Amino acid sequence: MTEIRLRDVAREAGVHTATASRALNPRTRDRVHPVTAARVDAAAERLGYEVNSAARALRTQRSEMIGVLIPDISRPLYPAVMRGIVDCLESQGYSALLSSTDEDELRERRLFAQLRARGVDGFLFATAHVRHPLLDEVAQQGIPAVALNRTASDAPVSSVASDNEGGMADVVTHLITLGHRDIAHVGGPTDTSTGQARAAGFVRAMESHGLPVSPGLSAEAEVYSIAGGVRAARALLKSGRTFTAVVTGNDLLALGVLDVLRENHIRCPEEISVTGFQDLPMMDRVSPALTTVHVPQYEMGHEAARILLQHIGGITEQQHVVLPVELMVRESTTRARRGTNGRRTAG
Amino acid sequence: MTEIRLRDVAREAGVHTATASRALNPRTRDRVHPVTAARVDAAAERLGYEVNSAARALRTQRSEMIGVLIPDISRPLYPAVMRGIVDCLESQGYSALLSSTDEDELRERRLFAQLRARGVDGFLFATAHVRHPLLDEVAQQGIPAVALNRTASDAPVSSVASDNEGGMADVVTHLITLGHRDIAHVGGPTDTSTGQARAAGFVRAMESHGLPVSPGLSAEAEVYSIAGGVRAARALLKSGRTFTAVVTGNDLLALGVLDVLRENHIRCPEEISVTGFQDLPMMDRVSPALTTVHVPQYEMGHEAARILLQHIGGITEQQHVVLPVELMVRESTTRARRGTNGRRTAG
Repeated sequence: MTEIRLRDVAREAGVHTATASRALNPRTRDRVHPVTAARVDAAAERLGYEVNSAARALRTQRSEMIGVLIPDISRPLYPAVMRGIVDCLESQGYSALLSSTDEDELRERRLFAQLRARGVDGFLFATAHVRHPLLDEVAQQGIPAVALNRTASDAPVSSVASDNEGGMADVVTHLITLGHRDIAHVGGPTDTSTGQARAAGFVRAMESHGLPVSPGLSAEAEVYSIAGGVRAARALLKSGRTFTAVVTGNDLLALGVLDVLRENHIRCPEEISVTGFQDLPMMDRVSPALTTVHVPQYEMGHEAARILLQHIGGITEQQHVVLPVELMVRESTTRARRGTNGRRTAG
Repeated sequence: MTEIRLRDVAREAGVHTATASRALNPRTRDRVHPVTAARVDAAAERLGYEVNSAARALRTQRSEMIGVLIPDISRPLYPAVMRGIVDCLESQGYSALLSSTDEDELRERRLFAQLRARGVDGFLFATAHVRHPLLDEVAQQGIPAVALNRTASDAPVSSVASDNEGGMADVVTHLITLGHRDIAHVGGPTDTSTGQARAAGFVRAMESHGLPVSPGLSAEAEVYSIAGGVRAARALLKSGRTFTAVVTGNDLLALGVLDVLRENHIRCPEEISVTGFQDLPMMDRVSPALTTVHVPQYEMGHEAARILLQHIGGITEQQHVVLPVELMVRESTTRARRGTNGRRTAG
């Protein structure tokens, strides 16, 4: 069988070889007129021409593959992030190798080594834990990498995060405008970057309004999950303290809080308002529809991939991007009722 | 720098080279005592030994990478499927290259060619469309591949599907037991494998109970989306026909139906019961909680990956697996009320 070469495709399409090359390379395709590009595609298809990535990888010293380390793609936070990553990579002719770390450090190391051995050009890390020795090593070795959900303060590599502090300020202002003063807090895991940032944001926002944050009105979830929210909310209720609103660090925690209120026959929002953070899919359809902070998940993934490709392209300067968030006011928050204020319930 | 070799790791760990090799290969690791395997890991880590996949690929003629073509990882059906795929692949030392096809045939072809060029050992296809020429070509060329959400009748390669017909039979029996007779149907896209199978299952279940399926009580959505469900439900209401329940081919369609009932002040389930299919995340928390058919998404992905690895290992015989489903009875279905039966509303 004769090997089909690029110049055969060009001849078949009636264009210069350079034009055919540009049309078939995702990174340069937009420099070719769409009609011409389609003609080159059709010619390549007719002749059975396949771009040889292995050969190109040898020439460019790049595999055009990226390792993506995500705790669990089936957790609702990550699918939109992943779609953003894949869209950006594919537009530049790159592919994503997806791994599930389950935030297990040993597993993550093994997968990292495996992806390294496959010759990936760089890494995207979505691990949430603040202590992250692998990230430090990657930084020391100069491996192109971008961390998601982290900020300059705790990422030794480039990072993309959402404005956790600004989001919390919006939540607290919203509740105070509704007349709430006794605001409880269910924070995310304190060993995660987002957990720390959102908790700090909550405290700062309360202080800026001159409101105290008492330890008795604060609980932390050990994991971002509904069950974590349930445990934290039960602890809050058991304390016997007075509050008319609960601010949480994550939608799943808020769902857990709602479950505990329901089992104690406390109505949301009439008796206690509840807020989430993230705006996961379906949060506008749960009951009551959740007031929360919309984090631009797709854009986070897309932006992280874009910066990573810049690093691979030779721009080594670290970048730390913080994307704006948006308060979504729905049914789970309402005006604090003076009369029933100070609901006290034994968990 | 001296290259670290496998026998150095074995010596460091105090084991035979063959044992070290087995411990470091995910496919043979379970033949080594866990304590020994951990000792080999530690030795490899201390010496900075990295398994060289490229060298192994050259030796075995395998890249140990799988191409996964999914319409859109951010659509709620796919994340759990993908997690199942990744878990199975990783347990065997394989990695997944994830692509988003958006069910665009040209895009899918381009991504397929790109993944082929990267040397993947096989493909997992989650494209829903029944007409799927690429799948036929893959079958003809003998490329290892498994199709998800398809059955033997329309997959030219091995397939993993859920029991769409059995699920629909359960839904119809459930509604009939509740006294429903006038049951409307909002089917999924007729050009998808699941749309066809579930619609056929609905008709067969109705017929087996001696109930007519009138065309006036049937609508098809052109896409699996909330908007698709909204359009189909409006058409149903406009027909002016009488019904006390709506069976849909997918949860998103059911959510669209619920929206239209709400905008027409028709209460669910008191006036009209509604069922979904799939049991997407959060369907137990939407309002009203959706009665639906649970499709084992994780298991589908895991099983498809398992069969694919068998094909890559040399077992070429086609397999067609149909996984059992489960009816989840929640709040959106209740006894048909004789009095208000036959609600008629101008959309």
